[in-house]
Amino acid sequence: MTPERKQRIIDTARARQPDLTVFMERVHKPHNLAAVLRTCDAVGIMHAHAVPAEHGLPTLNNTAQGAQRWVGLSRHADSVSGIRALREHGFSCHAAHFSERAVDFRRLDYTRPTAIVLGTEKFGVSDEALALCDGEIIIPMHGMTQSLNVSVACALILYEAERQRSLAGMYDANRSNESPWKELIEQWIARDLARRKTPLPEHPETAA
Amino acid sequence: MTPERKQRIIDTARARQPDLTVFMERVHKPHNLAAVLRTCDAVGIMHAHAVPAEHGLPTLNNTAQGAQRWVGLSRHADSVSGIRALREHGFSCHAAHFSERAVDFRRLDYTRPTAIVLGTEKFGVSDEALALCDGEIIIPMHGMTQSLNVSVACALILYEAERQRSLAGMYDANRSNESPWKELIEQWIARDLARRKTPLPEHPETAA
Repeated sequence: MTPERKQRIIDTARARQPDLTVFMERVHKPHNLAAVLRTCDAVGIMHAHAVPAEHGLPTLNNTAQGAQRWVGLSRHADSVSGIRALREHGFSCHAAHFSERAVDFRRLDYTRPTAIVLGTEKFGVSDEALALCDGEIIIPMHGMTQSLNVSVACALILYEAERQRSLAGMYDANRSNESPWKELIEQWIARDLARRKTPLPEHPETAA
Repeated sequence: MTPERKQRIIDTARARQPDLTVFMERVHKPHNLAAVLRTCDAVGIMHAHAVPAEHGLPTLNNTAQGAQRWVGLSRHADSVSGIRALREHGFSCHAAHFSERAVDFRRLDYTRPTAIVLGTEKFGVSDEALALCDGEIIIPMHGMTQSLNVSVACALILYEAERQRSLAGMYDANRSNESPWKELIEQWIARDLARRKTPLPEHPETAA
């Protein structure tokens, strides 16, 4: 491992935001899961959450660009137990869902511990998930179609969080010696070293 | 056609932004084209532009939610002629592309006539397109992967334009009797009436 690669891993790990996450209900399409995980990596999410669909989580291919190696993904048996666990860990849970009480996604304070709950491609956020959420957020739309693609909606919300957290200096903190960053850095370096010993013919990260 | 439907069509049409658009170079994947067109519809783009890939434009299915009926799509033989034409129509062209001179996507003034140039999924924006663009814009990333999904990047940029244009009151204008809104309203109403006379078993708009 080059010193540049090691430093990049350390810098990326210490910009991770353990108090920002997404909770995906039964995402079906591999390209949607791939796009969500790439965005999670880009905004520094340490750990994402999902309830697998009936046939399990979609299989990721190169379109994920290896994001699954840098973003942890916890599977939950159902939305109720998953969202309850997030709330017990101090997360405020907000569903990307249109309703009378929904607020514009740009009005939420994302510098607080926040989990964004995303529904399925077809049916949106489930009633049992909504019942456990602190609120609902909507993205303003000026068109004739009813909704945005789920990975697009997720990205718009997460990048509003990124904007607020950047302004608050939350990506600048030097936390290499604190938990959970210390453990994350050790884990990433060890895994990257092990992986590079047996290079794959097609490296997801080098695919454009 | 109910009076509510007619009014919705009129309101949507007059919020259209003829001076905001996207230019897609050889987009390959149907789900990416579908997601881009849904976002175009949502931010009020009147007309999008594309250079088809070798085998033509991807075929859209229900995931586009019928957005292709509300967003015009012009095909261009190549990027050079397409971007030149946009420039001749007064558009400032900005490529979603990383470079030394690229600026943060939130720093651009999108209230001016703006076209966002998007590259292919695999290779990004072509050199010949870059040579014709006024500038390059990047989205800040804090992760290990190199890029975002193309429809995600497109949405982030277009929703920054939406934010700026909303603040500037550009969606509120009452322009039903002006060109090109007048023609658009007439065209949409006529087409919607014709379409509803022969209802399809699976209506794209009612799919969630």
